[in-house]
Amino acid sequence: MTTNVLGYAAKSATDDLAPYRFTRREPRADDVAIEILYCGVCHSDLHTARNDWSGTMYPVVPGHEIIGRVVGVGAEVTRFKLGDRVGVGCMVDSCQHCAPCKQGLEQYCEGPATFTYNGSDRQDHTPTFGGYSQNIVVSDKFVLQIPNGLDLKGAAPLLCAGITTWSPLRHWQVGEGSRVAVVGLGGLGHMALKLAKGLGADVTLFTRSPGKEEDARRLGADHIVISTDEAQMKAVEGQFDLIIDTVPIEHDLNPYLPALALDGTLVLVGFLGNLMPTLNTVPLIMGRKSVAGSLIGGIAETQEMLNFCGEQGITSDVEVIAIQDINQAYERMQKSDVKYRFVIDMASLKE
Amino acid sequence: MTTNVLGYAAKSATDDLAPYRFTRREPRADDVAIEILYCGVCHSDLHTARNDWSGTMYPVVPGHEIIGRVVGVGAEVTRFKLGDRVGVGCMVDSCQHCAPCKQGLEQYCEGPATFTYNGSDRQDHTPTFGGYSQNIVVSDKFVLQIPNGLDLKGAAPLLCAGITTWSPLRHWQVGEGSRVAVVGLGGLGHMALKLAKGLGADVTLFTRSPGKEEDARRLGADHIVISTDEAQMKAVEGQFDLIIDTVPIEHDLNPYLPALALDGTLVLVGFLGNLMPTLNTVPLIMGRKSVAGSLIGGIAETQEMLNFCGEQGITSDVEVIAIQDINQAYERMQKSDVKYRFVIDMASLKE
Ligand SMILES: [Zn+2]
Ligand SMILES: [Zn+2]
Ligand SMILES: [Zn+2]
Ligand SMILES: [Zn+2]
Repeated sequence: MTTNVLGYAAKSATDDLAPYRFTRREPRADDVAIEILYCGVCHSDLHTARNDWSGTMYPVVPGHEIIGRVVGVGAEVTRFKLGDRVGVGCMVDSCQHCAPCKQGLEQYCEGPATFTYNGSDRQDHTPTFGGYSQNIVVSDKFVLQIPNGLDLKGAAPLLCAGITTWSPLRHWQVGEGSRVAVVGLGGLGHMALKLAKGLGADVTLFTRSPGKEEDARRLGADHIVISTDEAQMKAVEGQFDLIIDTVPIEHDLNPYLPALALDGTLVLVGFLGNLMPTLNTVPLIMGRKSVAGSLIGGIAETQEMLNFCGEQGITSDVEVIAIQDINQAYERMQKSDVKYRFVIDMASLKE
Repeated sequence: MTTNVLGYAAKSATDDLAPYRFTRREPRADDVAIEILYCGVCHSDLHTARNDWSGTMYPVVPGHEIIGRVVGVGAEVTRFKLGDRVGVGCMVDSCQHCAPCKQGLEQYCEGPATFTYNGSDRQDHTPTFGGYSQNIVVSDKFVLQIPNGLDLKGAAPLLCAGITTWSPLRHWQVGEGSRVAVVGLGGLGHMALKLAKGLGADVTLFTRSPGKEEDARRLGADHIVISTDEAQMKAVEGQFDLIIDTVPIEHDLNPYLPALALDGTLVLVGFLGNLMPTLNTVPLIMGRKSVAGSLIGGIAETQEMLNFCGEQGITSDVEVIAIQDINQAYERMQKSDVKYRFVIDMASLKE
């Protein structure tokens, strides 16, 4: 039996988000039905609602930092039971047989992966609708366990902001003694500080704003470097094994490349577009440095990150909002006026 | 006793190269004195002679693909004896104690390394003069053994073009079954084809010119892709673990990034400057791809490459010239009118 669900959707690129009724499928044998308790608000939600990347299929119900409680399981589901605290991130399915899927890198599925919203279901081809809604039905392979003790509100952003910064930290083997820098202190940046610190790295924040020092230290930064201060930038030349660049808008990478150590990597996690101004190759060649990109993370890796956060007590710093405030929240996000992630309390979603 | 030597030097950025007399130092205890038999002609020679990268100290005697015969050894030299066939590449010294030096990555010496020309000696601070000359005196640590059986003329370009392409092939672990593409078919590109093929990779040449197919196959390419043909580029999407980009001039990387496989790397070895047009981050993020740089290679790695070439019978395709033809050779190089490297026969260097 399908379920009639209330959510919030954008009906066009210029419409505000507004209440929207739709149906969720009857759970299949491998499905988990989840009552949504909280949903984080990601920059991708806003970009998709406004069709900034084109390709948005309207109406779109955004939201891929989903925390909830299991309210139903299909006949074949063994890993989840009623009442479990669970999460759903950016993906709800993938082909399961391509090379990336077999490596646990479902985010790079050649299928491609089915994203949590603005995608279409692999079996019935209906549109996928995200977490700005009362509940969701997801294949058990894409449902994550939320460790006991983790605050549910603060755990929601782990499903996108958390895994997006965790995955490059792990891929580039950050650990005790690694020297990591983070560019940008927003939703992604503040998670990068916490997770890098949790992994034992020596952590630096690059920021343009001197006022962020106290907060950055509280979040895990050992050092703060004002990226517009040439003397400070000169002082960190050759220092970092990994720079995680979380800046979501067009920006200049050239000032950061000299700060990489030999064989160091600057990994972009927040910006899809053209790197302006042009990249100069000299620091790349002179120190075998790399500029790379990384997209969210795989499902097993997401569970690993959640377990790590459970052990270390790491959650996101959040500002909880009612869903009726979502359009205002989008406006504030564009001004970076949030510390550090909005999370919708889904209890606010009533008719 | 110092030696009076005849070479060819540029006296300014606009002067042709012309005969020039200078002195080589008396060999120190760890020095090897080498009579130069052949010297390859590298794009860096031309760029330095013309001050294209600024920083040229005149007069400059270029040349860092040096092949010769040992004619003298200092008291402490044990690895070389009179008559040995030896080579000298881009470096003649380094600090020997920084982290890169300790890893055998002298090319990234924090000192920095002392380059074979347009550098200055670490002990007496005299300018270094390169291989367009009758002989050279070099610390034994920076002298390479040339395997028996390797043609000496064809071995000269291994010292720069060879190691510059070998080092990334090894660093990114190319071997049997790797899928490697090479952009550009010049001195570096033709060595990249030969060495990648020698390592067992499946090798593709990207070229703009259909006429190069036969030659490319002879040099080791299994496939040729015309990079201006959209259908051909589309057909190789996601194919390559490593792309070695040898193009020495400003060019657009964006067409090549989609051809990288998941976790693939495009490594720049030939171009110092700004990447025009701007790089689009989407293919980087969507497949955890990297754009990296690589500079020549370390000394131990250079010896490893020479030994490999000795076993496999790999040398450069060369056009031997008299040193009196060097200025004309520079003109032809700028038009890519050479297959694939000029090598100066130093027997031509007489008064
Ligand atoms: Zn997101
Ligand atoms: Zn797949
Ligand atoms: Zn060279
Ligand atoms: Zn050194």
